[in-house]
Amino acid sequence: MRRANRRAALRAWLQAAELDALLVTDLVNIRYLAGFTGSNAALLIDAESDDASRFCTDFRYQIQSETEVPDLPRVIDRPCDVALLRDAAGRVGFESHVVTVEALTGLEQAGPAELVRAPGLVEQLRAVKDPGEIDSLRHACAIADTAFAELVDAGGIRPGRTEYEVALDLDHRMRMLGAEPSFTTILAAGANSAIPHHSPTPVELRVGDLVKADFGATVDGYHSDMTRTVVLGQPADWQRDLHGLVLRAQRAGREACTVGNPAAEVDRAAREIVAAAGHGEHFGHGLGHGIGLVIHEDPFLAASSPAIMEADMCVTVEPGVYLPGRGGVRIEDSGVVRPDGYEILTLTTKELLTL
Amino acid sequence: MRRANRRAALRAWLQAAELDALLVTDLVNIRYLAGFTGSNAALLIDAESDDASRFCTDFRYQIQSETEVPDLPRVIDRPCDVALLRDAAGRVGFESHVVTVEALTGLEQAGPAELVRAPGLVEQLRAVKDPGEIDSLRHACAIADTAFAELVDAGGIRPGRTEYEVALDLDHRMRMLGAEPSFTTILAAGANSAIPHHSPTPVELRVGDLVKADFGATVDGYHSDMTRTVVLGQPADWQRDLHGLVLRAQRAGREACTVGNPAAEVDRAAREIVAAAGHGEHFGHGLGHGIGLVIHEDPFLAASSPAIMEADMCVTVEPGVYLPGRGGVRIEDSGVVRPDGYEILTLTTKELLTL
Repeated sequence: MRRANRRAALRAWLQAAELDALLVTDLVNIRYLAGFTGSNAALLIDAESDDASRFCTDFRYQIQSETEVPDLPRVIDRPCDVALLRDAAGRVGFESHVVTVEALTGLEQAGPAELVRAPGLVEQLRAVKDPGEIDSLRHACAIADTAFAELVDAGGIRPGRTEYEVALDLDHRMRMLGAEPSFTTILAAGANSAIPHHSPTPVELRVGDLVKADFGATVDGYHSDMTRTVVLGQPADWQRDLHGLVLRAQRAGREACTVGNPAAEVDRAAREIVAAAGHGEHFGHGLGHGIGLVIHEDPFLAASSPAIMEADMCVTVEPGVYLPGRGGVRIEDSGVVRPDGYEILTLTTKELLTL
Repeated sequence: MRRANRRAALRAWLQAAELDALLVTDLVNIRYLAGFTGSNAALLIDAESDDASRFCTDFRYQIQSETEVPDLPRVIDRPCDVALLRDAAGRVGFESHVVTVEALTGLEQAGPAELVRAPGLVEQLRAVKDPGEIDSLRHACAIADTAFAELVDAGGIRPGRTEYEVALDLDHRMRMLGAEPSFTTILAAGANSAIPHHSPTPVELRVGDLVKADFGATVDGYHSDMTRTVVLGQPADWQRDLHGLVLRAQRAGREACTVGNPAAEVDRAAREIVAAAGHGEHFGHGLGHGIGLVIHEDPFLAASSPAIMEADMCVTVEPGVYLPGRGGVRIEDSGVVRPDGYEILTLTTKELLTL
């Protein structure tokens, strides 16, 4: 039913845009609207009804699609997008932010429909989560929390282990808890922690290192995302100060995540704390991003973002300060924008852990 | 040097196409030409020289790009594609099979260059591998072979285990050997083996099941791909016959993988054996595909493929016959097209294993 509800919500937008149908070719959007998880499909959402809509995949997914998409008329053919346009008429929107220049040429030759640019419609729907989606994200966050707690309790983050070994250990714990990692786990020690997006290497962790772990778990296709930065041994003053600064910025960002606040203001709330401490140039990325069926999705929390915070948006808040050659700290939660503020879903402590 | 050689080869094509430069925005193509492995970049390859070319990424990857892309002028800015076009002039090709309809609008407004469709240029280069790439693929195939042998030797494919547990076990063995899985491992038992692309479920393996494992390992970004189908316990006659049929078709496909043969003929060589046995309708996918930095890439072995086999192309050969509700068999190797025939890189036996 929730998928039928989403299609109904989309239909209202199509009618407002005077479109007769929307050709959906983004696989994540197809999953969101129709439940299909395979690697090749297209979906034509008719502006009037599900009965006049069509789902298309190829031979390989015939059986799977009968189970996953029981409630829409199905076509087995390829290329899927062209097959669905063959009999479509009227004004048909297409996902112009997804369809390539070459693919559009194929669509224009497929049938009589008038093709109309319709970028980002389904992504806008996806930005606000329904209760089932929030449950999946909550579960995904809990698995990431649990795996991290197990890793810490087992002494898994210790001098002499390599970044790669620690990352693999953390990933395996998430898998044993039933969830694939949301993305390639970032495990960065010492000077590498100053690299915002660092892939784990055979470098060994050493006493005195800042160790940054940025990771998440995926449940039902929904991606959690969290970062904690710990110190091996007694922290130096500069490490403690840096961690405290980032934590203050992170709290300010969370507190600014209120319904109606522009995303650019949320970003600014955290950034001005970092800038006031003289580290503005060392915080070069946005404050956060939506999470869901994709690890980075609308809304983005950044100076250039047009988004306004709405209830039940799920976003990360993740300021970082990176000192080249020395080390960096990032602290990141996943959470939900609620009428009474930001509900944190990643419950691991944000105090500075010394291991 | 090998990346400089690739850029030099591309340059010859650009000059033949009377292009002054190519804007590369596909991240895999950027990795191939420049060595960058991050998630945001663009590359402008000047038709004359590397000195006049430009690599662009954003703040997050500044340090990483200094290490990975030492031999090209670097720009730190975003959006990367627009930044590189700002100062470009003349006829600039763009990857029209990658650039979306919306993104093209942004590029058209970025600067004075005349934008020209140039689809698939780098993909054509990538289809023929250099020795270093083949070494990486050989290593990736060896890890997959070893992990599968370990799994079989440990009794990992046994009645009572779930598809999910067996897949996780196989994946973990590849990771402990230092390689990530190339894609979500397909582990399909019993009637599920008739689903060509099946995701592992909590279904338990049972005596009498066909069990199909389709998996691969990734080394240096290069993806191996192999499938073996085994039987739990004594095979029934129909299972033995089905396996024998697919094996004959697979051998015919390999033997047709000769330099100069059209990919469509390679596909036909295997398909006519399946059709002659009355199972043409049960083999609904192509015979194989190129492997490399992407798990499915040019050349594709299929009736509709325009490719001609060339020396040092790396392709899979993977016929399958799927009987809905009963079970299916697929047998797949990764290999290299050589002047004297198809060199198999996945060395696991293709005899029917009974476990």
